[in-house]
Amino acid sequence: MIIQLKNNIDSDQKKAIIKKVNSFKYEANEVKTQKATYLIGIGTKEFDIRQIGNMPGIADIHIVSDSYKLVSRKWKVKPTIIDLGDGVTIGEGSLAMMAGPCSIEGEEQIVETIEHLKANGIKIMRGGVYKPRSSPYAFRGMGIEGLQLWYKHAKAAGLKIVTEVMQVSQIEPMLEYVDIFQVGARNTQNFNLLDALGEIDKAVMIKRGISGTIDELLYSAEYVFSGGNEKLILCERGIRTYEKASRNTLDLNAIPILKEKTHFPVVSDPSHGIGIRRHVEAMALASIMAGADGIIYETHSNPSKAFSDGQQTLDFRESEQLCNKMRATYELLASF
Amino acid sequence: MIIQLKNNIDSDQKKAIIKKVNSFKYEANEVKTQKATYLIGIGTKEFDIRQIGNMPGIADIHIVSDSYKLVSRKWKVKPTIIDLGDGVTIGEGSLAMMAGPCSIEGEEQIVETIEHLKANGIKIMRGGVYKPRSSPYAFRGMGIEGLQLWYKHAKAAGLKIVTEVMQVSQIEPMLEYVDIFQVGARNTQNFNLLDALGEIDKAVMIKRGISGTIDELLYSAEYVFSGGNEKLILCERGIRTYEKASRNTLDLNAIPILKEKTHFPVVSDPSHGIGIRRHVEAMALASIMAGADGIIYETHSNPSKAFSDGQQTLDFRESEQLCNKMRATYELLASF
Amino acid sequence: MIIQLKNNIDSDQKKAIIKKVNSFKYEANEVKTQKATYLIGIGTKEFDIRQIGNMPGIADIHIVSDSYKLVSRKWKVKPTIIDLGDGVTIGEGSLAMMAGPCSIEGEEQIVETIEHLKANGIKIMRGGVYKPRSSPYAFRGMGIEGLQLWYKHAKAAGLKIVTEVMQVSQIEPMLEYVDIFQVGARNTQNFNLLDALGEIDKAVMIKRGISGTIDELLYSAEYVFSGGNEKLILCERGIRTYEKASRNTLDLNAIPILKEKTHFPVVSDPSHGIGIRRHVEAMALASIMAGADGIIYETHSNPSKAFSDGQQTLDFRESEQLCNKMRATYELLASF
Amino acid sequence: MIIQLKNNIDSDQKKAIIKKVNSFKYEANEVKTQKATYLIGIGTKEFDIRQIGNMPGIADIHIVSDSYKLVSRKWKVKPTIIDLGDGVTIGEGSLAMMAGPCSIEGEEQIVETIEHLKANGIKIMRGGVYKPRSSPYAFRGMGIEGLQLWYKHAKAAGLKIVTEVMQVSQIEPMLEYVDIFQVGARNTQNFNLLDALGEIDKAVMIKRGISGTIDELLYSAEYVFSGGNEKLILCERGIRTYEKASRNTLDLNAIPILKEKTHFPVVSDPSHGIGIRRHVEAMALASIMAGADGIIYETHSNPSKAFSDGQQTLDFRESEQLCNKMRATYELLASF
Repeated sequence: MIIQLKNNIDSDQKKAIIKKVNSFKYEANEVKTQKATYLIGIGTKEFDIRQIGNMPGIADIHIVSDSYKLVSRKWKVKPTIIDLGDGVTIGEGSLAMMAGPCSIEGEEQIVETIEHLKANGIKIMRGGVYKPRSSPYAFRGMGIEGLQLWYKHAKAAGLKIVTEVMQVSQIEPMLEYVDIFQVGARNTQNFNLLDALGEIDKAVMIKRGISGTIDELLYSAEYVFSGGNEKLILCERGIRTYEKASRNTLDLNAIPILKEKTHFPVVSDPSHGIGIRRHVEAMALASIMAGADGIIYETHSNPSKAFSDGQQTLDFRESEQLCNKMRATYELLASF
Repeated sequence: MIIQLKNNIDSDQKKAIIKKVNSFKYEANEVKTQKATYLIGIGTKEFDIRQIGNMPGIADIHIVSDSYKLVSRKWKVKPTIIDLGDGVTIGEGSLAMMAGPCSIEGEEQIVETIEHLKANGIKIMRGGVYKPRSSPYAFRGMGIEGLQLWYKHAKAAGLKIVTEVMQVSQIEPMLEYVDIFQVGARNTQNFNLLDALGEIDKAVMIKRGISGTIDELLYSAEYVFSGGNEKLILCERGIRTYEKASRNTLDLNAIPILKEKTHFPVVSDPSHGIGIRRHVEAMALASIMAGADGIIYETHSNPSKAFSDGQQTLDFRESEQLCNKMRATYELLASF
Repeated sequence: MIIQLKNNIDSDQKKAIIKKVNSFKYEANEVKTQKATYLIGIGTKEFDIRQIGNMPGIADIHIVSDSYKLVSRKWKVKPTIIDLGDGVTIGEGSLAMMAGPCSIEGEEQIVETIEHLKANGIKIMRGGVYKPRSSPYAFRGMGIEGLQLWYKHAKAAGLKIVTEVMQVSQIEPMLEYVDIFQVGARNTQNFNLLDALGEIDKAVMIKRGISGTIDELLYSAEYVFSGGNEKLILCERGIRTYEKASRNTLDLNAIPILKEKTHFPVVSDPSHGIGIRRHVEAMALASIMAGADGIIYETHSNPSKAFSDGQQTLDFRESEQLCNKMRATYELLASF
Repeated sequence: MIIQLKNNIDSDQKKAIIKKVNSFKYEANEVKTQKATYLIGIGTKEFDIRQIGNMPGIADIHIVSDSYKLVSRKWKVKPTIIDLGDGVTIGEGSLAMMAGPCSIEGEEQIVETIEHLKANGIKIMRGGVYKPRSSPYAFRGMGIEGLQLWYKHAKAAGLKIVTEVMQVSQIEPMLEYVDIFQVGARNTQNFNLLDALGEIDKAVMIKRGISGTIDELLYSAEYVFSGGNEKLILCERGIRTYEKASRNTLDLNAIPILKEKTHFPVVSDPSHGIGIRRHVEAMALASIMAGADGIIYETHSNPSKAFSDGQQTLDFRESEQLCNKMRATYELLASF
């Protein structure tokens, strides 16, 4: 049960509502976001919500049978669109393209990537400055200095930045420079990180866990939302299966299923998904036809020299071609 | 190593070639198909094939490093097109649509399905007369009488028939009535069945095993080819993973990977793949964008009354819509 | 619902029972085995079985809520013991050891293996004469001649034979020589083969499918039982997962779960399970502690020269050691 | 390549060694632990290590072909034993038993659990004060106050404490009260947490990821070791597979494989592994026979009233029985 409170509710009214909720053996969790205040009622007994619905101070009330609540489409039927400012949005009605290198490597790479993105109308640049690596001896990214350098150029070019945050203590220093905080597949259930991202006013893109279920991804989103942040994007990036012919098994089934279960935008990452450069295009176009609201992919001026993930990274010529085909595919789907 | 022999080769020439092959510590397996005769050399040592290539009686020779040989695209670079007669083909250059019920249920159902397919330009009808069922107490299909009834109407309407064969002893009685013998996901590694299908002159569509790898699917195809039958189609139908939000995990990654590894057509089965009626369309269109040469899906005049698989079966209105969208999607891809 | 009929029931009594069963909207499937005749009622409505139970001609009646019926322990609480004759049994109260090579290779190998088994008190010999192989070019086994040769020596030595059957047409020629027909992991859902094995009077050991669920294994056993054969053994042999450090993931969780769900004996195959020779012992002993009624493993006088599976095959010294440790482990468990 | 430096090495000697290592195109990573200083050489070219081995300042040098280094048994052949003080150790030569509730719930529960453990000779108590929960609305543990309360009683009773740490900021406040910091299955690849745990002088037990590979677990251990902490324990706790009859698939194959790959102790968690109370015993005993150095399991005076995981928690009577059987099983294995 989700109860949206009126903004001008007084504390006696709130207390009365909570008391009423409790009287049905429901626990009432208060959630305050940048947009509104909610009471999330957790319980199992069925009752007639009209007994609560007409109490003073309530703006809206819904029964949500899913065990995640605020992210459920049973509550919010209309898709939520994430607004990054300057006319850049993610969600229903447009195709969000996010591209860039796996790792931010230096100024020259930043500049030439930005030129490529601008030339192709891509408004969001991806790149890693903190890199999760299986081995402690591998390159772990340029860190905050890399981010600041990147930001300087991206801002000048009018590009938005999406990049991975790996721990709570990084959020504060990164905050000024990042438009979308990405939660990586190894951190999808890092609940402390999710809690902390709930407290900021920047968009958060959560990748599906390496072997995460669709429901776990929705729960992780519920963490951020219930922490106070309604700017959420979900990302399918491939799951771990027995099949080793592809790096991961990009699970396109998850796209229509997620779109039905949640009101938040769903994007696809074909680069990590299939992990094979010459097949990234096919999986990107397939993702769009499956209903993705956006595509995030890796591109580099010289993939064979990239610090990481070169085997799944497009060069700029391939990237340009992909952009054109993605737009045409999205237009066809929109015309149906 | 694949050596294609000349049709007019004499037995001394053949003996000489085999002796030469053996001299490099390669075993020579003779494969005789409806089209040609091959020697498949199995060994590991590298040598210069020109030492064999100019011997009399050899039409063509290739090194194939894959452990499957005849189905490999390293041998045959040009895609193979399967010709079902009457202008119906499967493979590069066209989109094959195959539709029909999960189970053949009776004459009325056959007739109304055929009408629907004809009205929508679909030339291949699917349906089961032998049904593999987990429980011995479930409906196991109408059997050969059902197939004969179906054939009578399909032939009159000019439709081709694709249906599952479950065991060797069924092949002979089914042979006259079937255009494509389907090997189901539980029989992908039923090697006796594959051997027997190698001896007939009808197309064979092999479904990927329930948790079959891409390589195992190619090996199964190699069984049929090396048994003598070059008319092969491979079908992605979803794999078993930990995720239970979809019936299976339709693995679209397999489509570009298979298309690169083999010269045979690859089709997709979104109905069994995702297993959720309202998401079949999204997965069908995504399959096409991923590169599928065809789509096989389930449709029924009244899915809620179907004997089996109703929850993933489209009604005729949905099926019609899907046909139109599939054609538009295929045309867009062809235009790229 | 399972109704066991009295042996002397007359046809009017049977008709009356079926009519009564149908009156509750249950379908009645008649199952006749070597031991008894049953009616399996399939339906969903709950009712009081006492309304049926006291009808004439009924020996016993049980409600079984599992969807498999005859193999369920909800019906038969006491474990079933499979008697192979000559005092050799499989099931509760003893540990069955089955050992031998992956493939039967020739007389010398048969003879030396038999000597080893006799010296170590092993009464059941395993070996393959029909080998399922991924590649059509690999060794496929010695066939029926190999089986006859093996049988000659095994019979003389008083050993029982367990070997894989791959297709229906092999059953008849193999019947005289085989004590336990093994259904391999690729054939667990070869329903025609299961049906046919239901008609013979020899024990059948069904291996869990390559990615088969525990319930699917029980359903496959139900096929054989409902076909008429009550001599069943189930075998855990490792499942397919993402982890590639072991050949398969031997799933010992399945052992206590199967033992609880069915009254039939459950054995474990550590050789195929972990697939690494030096770890077979650990997994065999662990299987016993998990509750296995028997262990089937591979041994060869010279594993490095075995035709197949050498990397997971014990030599005779290792096999002897394993036997001693298995007996001690089983005794400890029995003493708890 | 691992080079252990002498404690009295001077800086010129160290520089000379690093220069030499670099001359072979190897990167030299310096690792300083509580015990020693190492240079980890990362490169691919093969060369004769005697060219380095006799340089002044080197205590020991080894080639390690695994990509994890310091945790590899190729380097340290002798098993490492973790000493928790007061005669409590984990590793070769003894069976470590760790038991207690899923969540610490309050003083009464702490006290009665301690009594039970003392009575059964168990020296390490498990319990959660920070609980990772899928849903943000579920009980998240008693936190630091719970830990302090627990510590007061555990210290008085002479028991050691193992408990989960979820984020870097918790380490400092927990440090005084914890003997073994547990890294949960959702944090196995939380590299920042692993880095931070490398800097403390307390034992760390890393659970295998929810779908983590054996190699990833070893890499995660390498993080902690290369961060400076040599007190490591690895824990198998079940992996995610398609099979849903058990909560997870406790992968006992991992035990002999891990024991061969690393010199650190390996323990098993049958409670989370199979997740079914009445089967925990079978999996615990099987784990010991598979070679586990210890068992961690859940017990509670009244499982049905436990705040979490009651369905897999033993009551004290079952726990006592298990202890006795575990000891007997371990003794038998030790006698082999």
